[in-house]
Amino acid sequence: MARIGIIGSEGRMGQALARAIAAKGETLSGGIDKGGDALALARVSDVLVDFSSPHALEANLDAAAEAGIPIVVGTTGLEERHHWLCDSAANNTAVLQTGNTSLGVTLLAWLVREAAARLGDDWDIEIVETHHRMKVDAPSGTALLLGQAAAQGRGVDLTAVSERGRDGITGARKPGAIGFASLRGGTVPGDHTVSLFGDHERISLSHLAEDRMIFAAGAVKAAQWLIGKPARRYAMGEVLGL
Amino acid sequence: MARIGIIGSEGRMGQALARAIAAKGETLSGGIDKGGDALALARVSDVLVDFSSPHALEANLDAAAEAGIPIVVGTTGLEERHHWLCDSAANNTAVLQTGNTSLGVTLLAWLVREAAARLGDDWDIEIVETHHRMKVDAPSGTALLLGQAAAQGRGVDLTAVSERGRDGITGARKPGAIGFASLRGGTVPGDHTVSLFGDHERISLSHLAEDRMIFAAGAVKAAQWLIGKPARRYAMGEVLGL
Amino acid sequence: MARIGIIGSEGRMGQALARAIAAKGETLSGGIDKGGDALALARVSDVLVDFSSPHALEANLDAAAEAGIPIVVGTTGLEERHHWLCDSAANNTAVLQTGNTSLGVTLLAWLVREAAARLGDDWDIEIVETHHRMKVDAPSGTALLLGQAAAQGRGVDLTAVSERGRDGITGARKPGAIGFASLRGGTVPGDHTVSLFGDHERISLSHLAEDRMIFAAGAVKAAQWLIGKPARRYAMGEVLGL
Amino acid sequence: MARIGIIGSEGRMGQALARAIAAKGETLSGGIDKGGDALALARVSDVLVDFSSPHALEANLDAAAEAGIPIVVGTTGLEERHHWLCDSAANNTAVLQTGNTSLGVTLLAWLVREAAARLGDDWDIEIVETHHRMKVDAPSGTALLLGQAAAQGRGVDLTAVSERGRDGITGARKPGAIGFASLRGGTVPGDHTVSLFGDHERISLSHLAEDRMIFAAGAVKAAQWLIGKPARRYAMGEVLGL
Repeated sequence: MARIGIIGSEGRMGQALARAIAAKGETLSGGIDKGGDALALARVSDVLVDFSSPHALEANLDAAAEAGIPIVVGTTGLEERHHWLCDSAANNTAVLQTGNTSLGVTLLAWLVREAAARLGDDWDIEIVETHHRMKVDAPSGTALLLGQAAAQGRGVDLTAVSERGRDGITGARKPGAIGFASLRGGTVPGDHTVSLFGDHERISLSHLAEDRMIFAAGAVKAAQWLIGKPARRYAMGEVLGL
Repeated sequence: MARIGIIGSEGRMGQALARAIAAKGETLSGGIDKGGDALALARVSDVLVDFSSPHALEANLDAAAEAGIPIVVGTTGLEERHHWLCDSAANNTAVLQTGNTSLGVTLLAWLVREAAARLGDDWDIEIVETHHRMKVDAPSGTALLLGQAAAQGRGVDLTAVSERGRDGITGARKPGAIGFASLRGGTVPGDHTVSLFGDHERISLSHLAEDRMIFAAGAVKAAQWLIGKPARRYAMGEVLGL
Repeated sequence: MARIGIIGSEGRMGQALARAIAAKGETLSGGIDKGGDALALARVSDVLVDFSSPHALEANLDAAAEAGIPIVVGTTGLEERHHWLCDSAANNTAVLQTGNTSLGVTLLAWLVREAAARLGDDWDIEIVETHHRMKVDAPSGTALLLGQAAAQGRGVDLTAVSERGRDGITGARKPGAIGFASLRGGTVPGDHTVSLFGDHERISLSHLAEDRMIFAAGAVKAAQWLIGKPARRYAMGEVLGL
Repeated sequence: MARIGIIGSEGRMGQALARAIAAKGETLSGGIDKGGDALALARVSDVLVDFSSPHALEANLDAAAEAGIPIVVGTTGLEERHHWLCDSAANNTAVLQTGNTSLGVTLLAWLVREAAARLGDDWDIEIVETHHRMKVDAPSGTALLLGQAAAQGRGVDLTAVSERGRDGITGARKPGAIGFASLRGGTVPGDHTVSLFGDHERISLSHLAEDRMIFAAGAVKAAQWLIGKPARRYAMGEVLGL
């Protein structure tokens, strides 16, 4: 049984992580929050999972490196300097940083990139996402991540080709565009569909989350996978062998 | 076998009507276009189907009334005065005017109105449509027709509640809003989905057209149904008993 | 605030009811289980909700009638004599018995019945449902309920027209058939789609449950609605004005 | 402009090929049917497309090899000895034989194989297909092809794990099973969806054909791609770089 330590243990994600660790049959070695001692936690853990705050990142990475254990970083709101910190820590221990810990979304992004790369750009790409009524921004971060994957598959820059907020007299669709649309309603945890429309046929690649628990489950899976890996920086896709 | 006359017989819709008449085992009594003699056509027909131009509408209605046969008007771009012409002709013969001759769309609009009326407005309504890459406007006319049906079911004015072109920092969804989103790609003849999102459940009501032929088939069905009906104005829903 | 009493309070559904009562801002007047005193509970409640066992039904109905309060019966596994008991109690108090307390499913069944009644039986009806990997029977009870609604709309007997387990050389589809298909996987709480396929167009009417909580929420809504209603037997659809 | 010769030119597929060749701006060098002279056709063509009959295959392959041009074989009903013939001809010229010429289906099968390989077999795989009411067998050949792709991704034998015709008391889903379900109705040219269900999330990979014309378009694309390729046997996926 792996001993997993949670940084940010009282947040919504931290609590979900504790349940996911139990569900997977692993051991929760402890949890800390703002002001907690990351190094003490690291010393009794086989791996750390950090869903706390960018401010705490440096101390958390140092603790992992000092204790010689790997760390999964799922904290959001990272800036360029936080990525440098991850790179630097990765010289000394295994660091997996990711903006999305769902295995399904991770795989979907890879499938989208491959599909976009294989089909010519005479196939039109459209991304539609649905989230609960309280979400305040559109498109979702995951929709943009999928758009990036499609753009990467085609070797183009997403910002140059994205079509958002389609309404009114739009004219015919621009060749090569990647379209986005956002639905909002109810309590939907998150649906995403990327469609590729050819002449008289279409392919749709979708992910549906029933529950936000999947992010915790994916983070635990990443943590399990990371134990024993050599020092370097890892991406979420590697957990799936992508 | 009913004898059906086509006004606007050389247009794309007129040609589709000729095929639909044959497929239903009825008789094509003839077809006219710009400058043709509608009265002569009416005299050898049991019913007329008009998919020509608003300019010809008055003469076509007169011909039907004079010959004592009903007329289906599917011409688009009608203005208020054209509706008066239909009302007036309906004193003398059966007139069925509609902006959408698909039986499926006609039923869907009715189902949407009923669903919106039954569920409280704590259920969020979103409409998404997909059309081919050459379509120049968004949302589609059919999406707006479905939005009207939803607004009517709730007893609200669509223009006051519609949310279109969602993009960027939108804030939380406004209670009572009816959202629209448009996808464009490939050769899609037309998909429409109206979703009602409640807490932890959702209902989706969809129509998918494989082929624009459905509009011709629905018009022929309306024409068959209209023969023998007393003089008044009819709506497409009545063909389905709605 | 209505005082709602739960019979079968320790079951999974009973616990969900307690959460739903709190979420709706009502008061939980108490809960009993096997051997509990239903009359005592009824005397401190405005309405009872029974998700216990068929064996306890008679005592529960008697308690409601004696205390002069309405009762929602969501207990499953009822036989004909249990329905007689409901009918009999309904002479003295309001009794709403239902096999499915989801508002969405209740509305969907009504929409399906209406759609089936309006479209001719040259429209082919197919029902597909998806449930979690632990479900041991197929099709789901809700799929059969939707099939009944479709058959009722057409004025046919479901058992005479249903096509299940399609596999191998089936021959062409029988006119008038209502087809069923079942998918099983993951933790899906329950998706249901009824499609009506015409020539070159189709209508799909779907319900997706994110969470089994919807059954508790619908039962509480039914309980709120039932308070103050005159003695008779009620159906779930009436809560939605169907 | 490539000169493309059609073998089986009067069949439904042959006629569709002629339209697809025109639509792509290529030249139809000629068409033959039963008893026609394949070698004469080959001598005025840059590539042959054969959608005729297994009986004619040997002569057609010989004609291509003799004329030194490649050949696309889309003929169905091939047996083992026909595959030997293809292998043998492929020593002398480029031969692309395939059971499905849709680019979308070809890509989908590859995506399914990759997804199945990446996700553990705690993800449940289900395949559902919809076809028109006249189809006499279930599941469709394409659904089986997708099932093969999934089984191959997992390194298992499809026949050992497939679950078909689910109905009645089935028991819980067997770990590792690949389920199939078939819907029949209307005029649907062919929809296929492969879903992978994990805990609280699911991925769905779909293909929808609007029109059987896609098979002709894909065959022409394969023919264009095959011109100038060295002698060997090719698979449809190679046209997409898979």
